[in-house]
Amino acid sequence: MSSPSSERRERAFALLAQLDPQAPEKVAKNLDELSDDFAELVLGFAFAYVVSHPGIDLRTREMLRVAALMAMGNAPGQLEFHIRAALQVGVSRSEIVEILLQMAVYAGVPACMNGISAARKAFASHGRGDQGS
Amino acid sequence: MSSPSSERRERAFALLAQLDPQAPEKVAKNLDELSDDFAELVLGFAFAYVVSHPGIDLRTREMLRVAALMAMGNAPGQLEFHIRAALQVGVSRSEIVEILLQMAVYAGVPACMNGISAARKAFASHGRGDQGS
Amino acid sequence: MSSPSSERRERAFALLAQLDPQAPEKVAKNLDELSDDFAELVLGFAFAYVVSHPGIDLRTREMLRVAALMAMGNAPGQLEFHIRAALQVGVSRSEIVEILLQMAVYAGVPACMNGISAARKAFASHGRGDQGS
Amino acid sequence: MSSPSSERRERAFALLAQLDPQAPEKVAKNLDELSDDFAELVLGFAFAYVVSHPGIDLRTREMLRVAALMAMGNAPGQLEFHIRAALQVGVSRSEIVEILLQMAVYAGVPACMNGISAARKAFASHGRGDQGS
Amino acid sequence: MSSPSSERRERAFALLAQLDPQAPEKVAKNLDELSDDFAELVLGFAFAYVVSHPGIDLRTREMLRVAALMAMGNAPGQLEFHIRAALQVGVSRSEIVEILLQMAVYAGVPACMNGISAARKAFASHGRGDQGS
Amino acid sequence: MSSPSSERRERAFALLAQLDPQAPEKVAKNLDELSDDFAELVLGFAFAYVVSHPGIDLRTREMLRVAALMAMGNAPGQLEFHIRAALQVGVSRSEIVEILLQMAVYAGVPACMNGISAARKAFASHGRGDQGS
Repeated sequence: MSSPSSERRERAFALLAQLDPQAPEKVAKNLDELSDDFAELVLGFAFAYVVSHPGIDLRTREMLRVAALMAMGNAPGQLEFHIRAALQVGVSRSEIVEILLQMAVYAGVPACMNGISAARKAFASHGRGDQGS
Repeated sequence: MSSPSSERRERAFALLAQLDPQAPEKVAKNLDELSDDFAELVLGFAFAYVVSHPGIDLRTREMLRVAALMAMGNAPGQLEFHIRAALQVGVSRSEIVEILLQMAVYAGVPACMNGISAARKAFASHGRGDQGS
Repeated sequence: MSSPSSERRERAFALLAQLDPQAPEKVAKNLDELSDDFAELVLGFAFAYVVSHPGIDLRTREMLRVAALMAMGNAPGQLEFHIRAALQVGVSRSEIVEILLQMAVYAGVPACMNGISAARKAFASHGRGDQGS
Repeated sequence: MSSPSSERRERAFALLAQLDPQAPEKVAKNLDELSDDFAELVLGFAFAYVVSHPGIDLRTREMLRVAALMAMGNAPGQLEFHIRAALQVGVSRSEIVEILLQMAVYAGVPACMNGISAARKAFASHGRGDQGS
Repeated sequence: MSSPSSERRERAFALLAQLDPQAPEKVAKNLDELSDDFAELVLGFAFAYVVSHPGIDLRTREMLRVAALMAMGNAPGQLEFHIRAALQVGVSRSEIVEILLQMAVYAGVPACMNGISAARKAFASHGRGDQGS
Repeated sequence: MSSPSSERRERAFALLAQLDPQAPEKVAKNLDELSDDFAELVLGFAFAYVVSHPGIDLRTREMLRVAALMAMGNAPGQLEFHIRAALQVGVSRSEIVEILLQMAVYAGVPACMNGISAARKAFASHGRGDQGS
């Protein structure tokens, strides 16, 4: 009954929920509205196969994503999402600040300032729901 | 006798040597030829203060740099240098491959393919000098 | 009476009107306020000579622009404009979704997600004025 | 006997061969050396699901890829590959030149000049094997 | 009493005040909230050592920063800040428009249009406080 | 006899010769081979109208181009060309080094290192033909 494609979607959404419990519903709504198989194709690949691939623990993985999104600077909303996800899986605030400092050197001060702005939003909203980090 | 600025330079070069024993000599030659205080200004900041800043261990730091340089895609030579530096401080080849996979998702398949090319060169030259990873 | 430069401006604005009837007025206002010859220089080149250059039909041209703007990711407002322009000249919504999928592969999932956000806005505003696509 | 994963790999390689008959062998060699499932994961997604997805014909798809790779400017070797692939599936040289002109406007003259250099190499090597475009 | 680090911070803030009298307070608030030594590390380097380095006058330096921020396109708020700072240190509005035209050629029309939007905001807010340019 | 288009081409090439006496011949050969009107369209816009536009002196203009090309990092050959052109029109080597330092802050150390490599090549080749800077 569950096709390979719907299984892959399920796994993607289970992983997404681990990072942010509200994310699967929002993502599904956004993507399914555009095209029936969009969520399956993009998330099925991005989340189930690659994001959850073994070999590097989830905490380090989130740090790598935060570094890459800061360096590229093209997706401030997704950077904020992954900073929150990083806090959610145990990265500390001071580790996020350390990554920001690295990116001042590697991607320049403007990229770092954009990262600071995303971090301040993520810290504020994470703080409201969870006092853990 | 040693000014604060030459101390900062020394610390930067000591850290650089930890990543690649030949690097300080090459970097000094390149930078000093352009301007006397270039090495002190750029490396003094980049390496002594930020790269060696406490809070994230050097091994994870090198993974973050590799991810950022793959994502930005503007410096293949420096990416190759930091993949070798990562191997030098204990990151395994399969962890580098995992970072490449992440970057296929976050920065696109062309950026990932460029990263593959840098990784193959770094693996080959690291393999020659050191069998450890 | 009409100088070569004002002719070029006219042609640029005629083409712009084909993509969005309100655009010439908005663009003229924005650019003329900054400098008298800004609109002529930039649009004269960009629109009259290059955008309207023969050799590829306007429909395919708009698809190429949408792909390039998604890939570069530096101009979300202009991406939204060209998605609407694409719908205006006959590109279908499902073709826009296909371009988004391509860009997930070539420019990464964050660029694709930004494109999804621009597409949803363009689809919504185009839908209000025109039921054709 | 053939797992879903090896089927996906087969389909990816069949499509790749349509663009350049020598590509599957080169790609397999490059990727398999790094990791057993790299080719399956990246190409399985990139080529079998997305590149070959219905909805836009292969000829237009190659034009979109050429535009995106020119605009991003981060992968000159892959741009040259896709210009050759475009010629292979029926895009004419003058259409490639038109895309270059578009990209002068959208991504700037330096990106266009890099595209010119890739196009000249692709035209030269395509000319040697095939007189068709 | 004043450590080398607090001296460096003072110099950075003095320079920042020259560009925009309100900036030091805003920047200090943003950065100190994240980490005690963030302002010292980033601004100490960026502003005291490099931005104020002799060799190119401050007016030309601000023109170079405006050009670079337009070209990179990753920090519209900082571009707007530096366009205002440029006006503050004597760059004229028509010189800003000339830089915009240059960037249409070098970084593409979308980057130029983003720059136009930042320039219009900077011109408007600078006009309110100061009629000098 | 001389059409408006060939006049524009002449002016573009006269300006190009001012920056580098060998450039017009190389550029014409590269562009005309691709398409008859490519040189006229791209250079006619880029050089005759914008690069030579009054309002900012040629020396400052070359400094702006060097800054922008370093910041974007997508065209090392063109960066090297414009560093040589800057030296040709009176920018000193130490001013080029100052721009490199600025770009370490704004575009990151990897972009700065790439700029250093272009500057070293430009300094070496300019030194051979001309001892003036």
